[in-house]
Amino acid sequence: MQGTVLYGPRDVRFEEREAPKIIEPTDAIIRISATCVCGSDLWPYRGIQPISQPMAMGHEYCGVVEEIGSAVKTVKHGQFVVGSFCISDNTCPICRTGYQSGCQNLSFMTGAQAPYARVPFADGTLVATPGMPPEEIIPSLLTTSDVLGTGWFAADAAHVKPGSTVVVVGDGAVGLLGVLSAKQMGAERIIAMSRHEKRQKLAVEFGATDIVTERGDDGVARIKEMTGGFGAESVLECVGTQESMMQAIHCTRPGGSIGYVGVPHGAQLDAQQLFFKLVHLHGGPAPVRRYLPKLIELVWSQQINPGKVFDLTLPLNQVAEGYRAMDERRAIKALLQP
Amino acid sequence: MQGTVLYGPRDVRFEEREAPKIIEPTDAIIRISATCVCGSDLWPYRGIQPISQPMAMGHEYCGVVEEIGSAVKTVKHGQFVVGSFCISDNTCPICRTGYQSGCQNLSFMTGAQAPYARVPFADGTLVATPGMPPEEIIPSLLTTSDVLGTGWFAADAAHVKPGSTVVVVGDGAVGLLGVLSAKQMGAERIIAMSRHEKRQKLAVEFGATDIVTERGDDGVARIKEMTGGFGAESVLECVGTQESMMQAIHCTRPGGSIGYVGVPHGAQLDAQQLFFKLVHLHGGPAPVRRYLPKLIELVWSQQINPGKVFDLTLPLNQVAEGYRAMDERRAIKALLQP
Repeated sequence: MQGTVLYGPRDVRFEEREAPKIIEPTDAIIRISATCVCGSDLWPYRGIQPISQPMAMGHEYCGVVEEIGSAVKTVKHGQFVVGSFCISDNTCPICRTGYQSGCQNLSFMTGAQAPYARVPFADGTLVATPGMPPEEIIPSLLTTSDVLGTGWFAADAAHVKPGSTVVVVGDGAVGLLGVLSAKQMGAERIIAMSRHEKRQKLAVEFGATDIVTERGDDGVARIKEMTGGFGAESVLECVGTQESMMQAIHCTRPGGSIGYVGVPHGAQLDAQQLFFKLVHLHGGPAPVRRYLPKLIELVWSQQINPGKVFDLTLPLNQVAEGYRAMDERRAIKALLQP
Repeated sequence: MQGTVLYGPRDVRFEEREAPKIIEPTDAIIRISATCVCGSDLWPYRGIQPISQPMAMGHEYCGVVEEIGSAVKTVKHGQFVVGSFCISDNTCPICRTGYQSGCQNLSFMTGAQAPYARVPFADGTLVATPGMPPEEIIPSLLTTSDVLGTGWFAADAAHVKPGSTVVVVGDGAVGLLGVLSAKQMGAERIIAMSRHEKRQKLAVEFGATDIVTERGDDGVARIKEMTGGFGAESVLECVGTQESMMQAIHCTRPGGSIGYVGVPHGAQLDAQQLFFKLVHLHGGPAPVRRYLPKLIELVWSQQINPGKVFDLTLPLNQVAEGYRAMDERRAIKALLQP
């Protein structure tokens, strides 16, 4: 089998690897129908998050169950499944509160940019679809594995409610699906901060009511102007830099909420500044497993079409081009087909 | 009139000042029945928060309305009132969401360590008691002005619910009243972190079920051990230092909540660390005005006796001794009687 391995900055290879096999009785092996490159894959790809050894890449996935371990009970051979990028047992006390991304047996999925992948804790990680999906909804099902689940968590963590005014910082795939999520949750006004025409258009298609092109202090001033001088009730931070986090914090009204899902890199928050802003702050790796049944249902019934974030589709063996296109911002998100 | 003025580190004076008078039609003048020294007064007293000019001190207060401006409607001459340490109009869009401490007309009360004080936005800041209070409940009524309201906010921000396990970091008056608040909200287990015998006893009296004397990493390890390895659902941070904030964050389970009300001084939060802890973080200056009617009712009906935090009572002209006793941790909190 061939799979995707990152060797160092901008050195991603599609090369011969050992085919995955059942190791634990709670494992499943999935034949991947579709996978993709995640914004978070770009951190090690760019060398910002250094790696000490070659790393099998890929954590967003859906496909058909090829084999299950002897202890697996809820998914069966031949079923189409979507799994969370967080591996969880879904039975521990933390999972039972809906925080499967804080599971006591937590690990992160790897090696899914390949034709086959091993999924530990299959019962706690995978959710089967109602049947074999039509080809055209597979990209949307794939998004539920991470990027949509993460945008959804951002909106949930930011307490988006019917009638809310929402600001979305970040026009990557997560931010765009944060817009879609806020719309689904009934937000009345959704302000997307973007200066990229193609992404602005998709944001509007997903439900954005306003586009703000200014950034930093100017962006904050514009948001304040649009919200009676106060800032928004709910702000989704979907980047993870110091600048984007501060932009999010300053766009939030006192008592408002920030859902932050961009993995922070080098960002420090001054606690006193945060204190006097009176904001709610919640974020982290999204508990996608909590949302999967609902998100699969929304996709299955074609109420949402989050697969539109894929503006580049490549055969899996051209995975390196997928990374390049996203790194250079030529593509919003690259879908890979084994 | 004589009042309290801070001139610099450890230089607090009780000296002749101009008596307050109505300036705006929304003002009231209060004859102070009781006031006190706040933990936050110690920051400038200790020189950690430098001051550029002499500062009139005191922001916790209750007393009798002496005079009202022409626009004041809800409080009357002769009524006993308690006011929030945050001055708010209680009508702006932020106040209407319950965040009066983020009011568009926000200011902070000053000059209450005096026989008389001016309260701006009297209608939005003061709440009258049902009648003239008996002498013995005045200390408890005084706590609702800030220290109890702040402890209450910490518990509320940390989402304390019936059955919750709660950790309280900080055994000052705010932390102790955080214990009382958590108890009122139905917490099942309340773990107070304290190594000070007198404060431990009061914590237990207020509802603490466990005392942890360890601090820092040892304290965190002890909390983990007591909570099945996960940490608590709700943690109240009532200090504001780097160490106490990190202790609070590490004592919280994934998906749990931290209410932080100690004014942070020099604390920086690493956003990536916070991200992977998956905690909810909320805090700031407490919106005491939101809680005042409920807290006054709890005190008035003698369901709670938060006034027990005052372990030193002084005539107002000995205010300097009140500061010294709290600075040296000889007193938990000093009540001052004009």
